[in-house]
Amino acid sequence: MDIGNEIDILIVEDNSTDAELTIRALKKNNLANRIFLVEDGEEALNFLFSKNQFSDRLNKDNPKVVFLDLKLPKIDGLEVLKTIKSDPVLKSIPIVILTSSNEESDIIKSYQLGVNSFITKPVDFEKFMLAVKEIGFYWLLLNQPPLT
Amino acid sequence: MDIGNEIDILIVEDNSTDAELTIRALKKNNLANRIFLVEDGEEALNFLFSKNQFSDRLNKDNPKVVFLDLKLPKIDGLEVLKTIKSDPVLKSIPIVILTSSNEESDIIKSYQLGVNSFITKPVDFEKFMLAVKEIGFYWLLLNQPPLT
Repeated sequence: MDIGNEIDILIVEDNSTDAELTIRALKKNNLANRIFLVEDGEEALNFLFSKNQFSDRLNKDNPKVVFLDLKLPKIDGLEVLKTIKSDPVLKSIPIVILTSSNEESDIIKSYQLGVNSFITKPVDFEKFMLAVKEIGFYWLLLNQPPLT
Repeated sequence: MDIGNEIDILIVEDNSTDAELTIRALKKNNLANRIFLVEDGEEALNFLFSKNQFSDRLNKDNPKVVFLDLKLPKIDGLEVLKTIKSDPVLKSIPIVILTSSNEESDIIKSYQLGVNSFITKPVDFEKFMLAVKEIGFYWLLLNQPPLT
């Protein structure tokens, strides 16, 4: 994962198994090789704002989509979402909440904060892999990404 | 089309051929039978706000997704988008711009106004039908709709 290059998908996920499966499903379907993984909310915001450990990020183009978990160390997913959607430039980046939660309050808050899409991760392995493939296909091949 | 029942998809499209093909692709794939079609921007807003000709709308549940064309009579698509995303309740409804435009300014403005997704309609018939199927699948079967 080279932060000098353009990134298609930023994955924000602290569970290493889920992160690995997501990346495997995307690569298996040739949907994205340009993936960058961060493991907490602070790292996600530093990446997007090119701050601290990412202040030298060479390519400042935004990813075409961010897969954002909700339960994250340091800064939680809803706070990350709020910060992105409050920024005049970053607000255009499509944010897909990808979470094990299907709690009503999480869904309601996410849409109020301007999330682009909210997906509850299927528990079943095959269904999870298929869902990631569909989500990747939709945001990388069908959707027109915001121009940055 | 019965406005007394719950609606899955609100289609806002003035081109009757495009509207018919969209509905055909959705029904063919058993993605949605509960579709409501309006043909201009004013009608779309009246439907969503339950006003004027829709003041008697029995079921006030919001659709799971709105497919919104940009070039529309009376009130254009970007103005419809802006009105929906400025309303504290309606802002949660997923709005997919489905347009023949791939003009940079339309894409930039749509994301700035908070669109959930921007899709340029494929010109090729088969590709158009496949795209509608994928879009329908994503927003009706994968995405968790906002709770209303």
